[in-house]
Amino acid sequence: MNHAILLISSPDSKGITAAITSFIANNGGNIIHADQHIDEQSNTFFMRIEWSLVGFQIKREKITEAFSPIAHQFKMTWQLHFSDQKERVAIFVSKHLHCLYDLLYRYRSGQLNCEIPIIISNHPDAADLAKDFEIKFHEFAVLKNNKIEQEKKQMDLLKQERIDLVVLARYHQILTSAFIDSHKNQIINIHHSFLPAFAGKNPYLQAHQKGVKVIGATSHFVTEVLDEGPIIAQDTVAISHRDAVEDLVRKGEDLERVVLNRAVRLYLEKKILCYGNKTVVFD
Amino acid sequence: MNHAILLISSPDSKGITAAITSFIANNGGNIIHADQHIDEQSNTFFMRIEWSLVGFQIKREKITEAFSPIAHQFKMTWQLHFSDQKERVAIFVSKHLHCLYDLLYRYRSGQLNCEIPIIISNHPDAADLAKDFEIKFHEFAVLKNNKIEQEKKQMDLLKQERIDLVVLARYHQILTSAFIDSHKNQIINIHHSFLPAFAGKNPYLQAHQKGVKVIGATSHFVTEVLDEGPIIAQDTVAISHRDAVEDLVRKGEDLERVVLNRAVRLYLEKKILCYGNKTVVFD
Amino acid sequence: MNHAILLISSPDSKGITAAITSFIANNGGNIIHADQHIDEQSNTFFMRIEWSLVGFQIKREKITEAFSPIAHQFKMTWQLHFSDQKERVAIFVSKHLHCLYDLLYRYRSGQLNCEIPIIISNHPDAADLAKDFEIKFHEFAVLKNNKIEQEKKQMDLLKQERIDLVVLARYHQILTSAFIDSHKNQIINIHHSFLPAFAGKNPYLQAHQKGVKVIGATSHFVTEVLDEGPIIAQDTVAISHRDAVEDLVRKGEDLERVVLNRAVRLYLEKKILCYGNKTVVFD
Amino acid sequence: MNHAILLISSPDSKGITAAITSFIANNGGNIIHADQHIDEQSNTFFMRIEWSLVGFQIKREKITEAFSPIAHQFKMTWQLHFSDQKERVAIFVSKHLHCLYDLLYRYRSGQLNCEIPIIISNHPDAADLAKDFEIKFHEFAVLKNNKIEQEKKQMDLLKQERIDLVVLARYHQILTSAFIDSHKNQIINIHHSFLPAFAGKNPYLQAHQKGVKVIGATSHFVTEVLDEGPIIAQDTVAISHRDAVEDLVRKGEDLERVVLNRAVRLYLEKKILCYGNKTVVFD
Repeated sequence: MNHAILLISSPDSKGITAAITSFIANNGGNIIHADQHIDEQSNTFFMRIEWSLVGFQIKREKITEAFSPIAHQFKMTWQLHFSDQKERVAIFVSKHLHCLYDLLYRYRSGQLNCEIPIIISNHPDAADLAKDFEIKFHEFAVLKNNKIEQEKKQMDLLKQERIDLVVLARYHQILTSAFIDSHKNQIINIHHSFLPAFAGKNPYLQAHQKGVKVIGATSHFVTEVLDEGPIIAQDTVAISHRDAVEDLVRKGEDLERVVLNRAVRLYLEKKILCYGNKTVVFD
Repeated sequence: MNHAILLISSPDSKGITAAITSFIANNGGNIIHADQHIDEQSNTFFMRIEWSLVGFQIKREKITEAFSPIAHQFKMTWQLHFSDQKERVAIFVSKHLHCLYDLLYRYRSGQLNCEIPIIISNHPDAADLAKDFEIKFHEFAVLKNNKIEQEKKQMDLLKQERIDLVVLARYHQILTSAFIDSHKNQIINIHHSFLPAFAGKNPYLQAHQKGVKVIGATSHFVTEVLDEGPIIAQDTVAISHRDAVEDLVRKGEDLERVVLNRAVRLYLEKKILCYGNKTVVFD
Repeated sequence: MNHAILLISSPDSKGITAAITSFIANNGGNIIHADQHIDEQSNTFFMRIEWSLVGFQIKREKITEAFSPIAHQFKMTWQLHFSDQKERVAIFVSKHLHCLYDLLYRYRSGQLNCEIPIIISNHPDAADLAKDFEIKFHEFAVLKNNKIEQEKKQMDLLKQERIDLVVLARYHQILTSAFIDSHKNQIINIHHSFLPAFAGKNPYLQAHQKGVKVIGATSHFVTEVLDEGPIIAQDTVAISHRDAVEDLVRKGEDLERVVLNRAVRLYLEKKILCYGNKTVVFD
Repeated sequence: MNHAILLISSPDSKGITAAITSFIANNGGNIIHADQHIDEQSNTFFMRIEWSLVGFQIKREKITEAFSPIAHQFKMTWQLHFSDQKERVAIFVSKHLHCLYDLLYRYRSGQLNCEIPIIISNHPDAADLAKDFEIKFHEFAVLKNNKIEQEKKQMDLLKQERIDLVVLARYHQILTSAFIDSHKNQIINIHHSFLPAFAGKNPYLQAHQKGVKVIGATSHFVTEVLDEGPIIAQDTVAISHRDAVEDLVRKGEDLERVVLNRAVRLYLEKKILCYGNKTVVFD
């Protein structure tokens, strides 16, 4: 069954929920899920509302037009989605394939409501895996002097494939501002630490040297400042002095898979709203 | 600031959210929190909505009357609460005082929005603690032949003290149906296992004999079937072969405190709705 | 580097650790790991000790003979392993392939120190996956009237392939006593609940109907009583009223993969000792 | 029953475990617990071994002398403890009393094997609580110009009370080097974040501003660099956008109590060894 989903943020004001839910009710819609949040510091209202299109009296291509006056009245920033529209996802990966593998397994078993037409890498390692899953594989070897050029080709490819979401599943290249700006809040990265601790290179080695008793993984939107974008999901696992760096890698990879998958699924289900450098996650 | 809270369950039908939120908006109320859930199996709608009474045009003593037509139209079961009304809580305890201690600490430090006028026990052990916290202590020694009699006195006392919630903080007596029926969904128990495993006596011993690798604690409403009432909160902790029964007790007691406190707090914040033998917890 | 591993259980007595470690030291061995446990209830001593064979003066094929007098003196039950000996593993699966998939990924990426020569199923669903990983796939359709016959063929196959460990990665057939007896403490199952709760069929449905707030997964050795064998690993995850049965399945499958993998890895690293209906896990 | 405990670190070498366990066995001791660890990077051996003094042929006051030749031979750094010797603990606290309260409850209920003769504070808030528990309370108001003077008085008091362990249970003063140096690896602090993230002031506010999805608590030995000493215990808890700073404080305080108690208990049970800026924790 097809559903419409509204994702809304706006200044908080009296009557906003009533206005939105009355719009749905008056047009014969049946609400399936509704969740809202008010950030008291900034007096901002956030809502995710999902309703069945069965019996809804406005055609889906007319909903935007019909809802616009309400949105305008309450100064909303808003997105309208339909549950039958599949996002198109590109996965970027380097040599560590565990997150890619996990996403592909979930994709094939129907857990991820998306299309994954392409896998992009700066190394050839994922080619066989892409082949097993019948997904196009593109290798763009990135050298010191060809980075901007290669990125341009990547951006062209993303455009051509009509990609809505870029997932960096352990892609070990820093993207340029040009790339990031052209996909604002559309690039999800997995970092293998509980940020803000251990940003940058070799977080498992950093964690081992520091002697922490938990390690973590963080999935976040990519912004221009490395490992600083809005956090979507995080999790941690206990470790001990017995764990060598390679044990941290093994335990951490299990976390990375879970955390990245959680972030990607939340994105595909339209459950994430960004504000400032933070996220509202309607889970 | 004072808030009104509606807790609603009803058959799901189109327009119900709009009707509720319009009632609030049309009377000048500002929604602070709203959360809803639809149980698809039983087609039941659940809602918790909280709004500020600042600027609300209906006097608080008139809200029930004003909301009744809507409630009637949608066949709602509903409760109206006000955040400035403190529930009156009686704590029952036997010889293990860790949960009592924890609740009293949180009560004194202002974490629990309630009054705790009395502590009831079948043993004298908690008398000193009650005195430290300046709470009346009543001992009702329960013997084979005086149980019904003692319970009657307890019920009289609860009535006299206008008790809204009974918390069994490791009270090792089985309550009679008469007692339970007179406080439907108003008695919260902590059981020291992850129910439905290890119901009944000595759950830590049972867990040790079984050789499980996690233990748990469960907070639930008390119904006539022992350890079978609607579950409010549960949590678990990892154990190993190194843990003797006394280690399970120690680790488990830390869980019990957290889980019972969570359930009591949720109750006091009017965040729990029962349906069938389950709960909706708006946390 | 090759290591020897002794797994020992015996009645506890003075001098046992000194006898074992002196045996290793006097023959030039360097201990890499040593862990011991004393079960006070039964006065049983358990030890896992691992030492480097570099510079060890007893040839590996003579260690059993050399150690036997000490073992005899202290009435030990003991096993000697070498880290370069790879166990041979058969995976049994039905239609849910997530655990199989996960084990195969870890196998291919070198995380599991074993050989997996065969996958056995009562359905054809895993055939393609086996092919991708270049592992022999054997389908034994099990009907009411051919179960014993099919099991015999399976047992012949396990013998022929010299299988050391059978992993039931969601294999939905109950094994006969004949099969179980011939592989005592060599069959690991994953059950999709926190046992002893929700044994038997449809544990996620049972959990949903009960309204629990955590679900779990349990990996255990298979004994004749269904879902009652010694528990190796367990874990749990929080759920809420929002989770429908299919959400429990999705969240639970992530647990199952982690818990089964943990049990298999512990087995392959010779870190599990059974006693009574429980396990000592040297992790 | 009284036990002896040896805590040992040394360069790793062949025969060290055999030498230690033979020393115990040859003198009629029965090992209760033994745990060892080898740090491969630094080739360091760590051991904690605990044996019953029942039947042990060396008098307790002669064990140091008897063991010294072995210690010397293997270049050990070592400590000998007896389980019947109670450490003397001073708790330092400022205005947040939740950790103090928790430690005192556990102390009174017999969970902590120690004496707590004094509580020290720079504020009067904890005086009543100290009185309830019949513990001496000393207030040392710390101003800009009297810090060194006040610390000297504190140090005198610690000496006079023969204090073995200082617990900073949310003591909001930075200690001077003189104080720290005089109690090396004898001062345990609780910091309300998962270090190294959010060191310094207001970690819950920092966490809220950063928008993390987990918060944590860290217990560590105090060294001269603020919040940088060897970590003993850490734990984390999930949060969401719904949690305001005061919710982080509430959830975090529950963590702090658990994490600080874990560290203190490990210390009192002689289960912690420091090396470099890290700890080995034999739990």
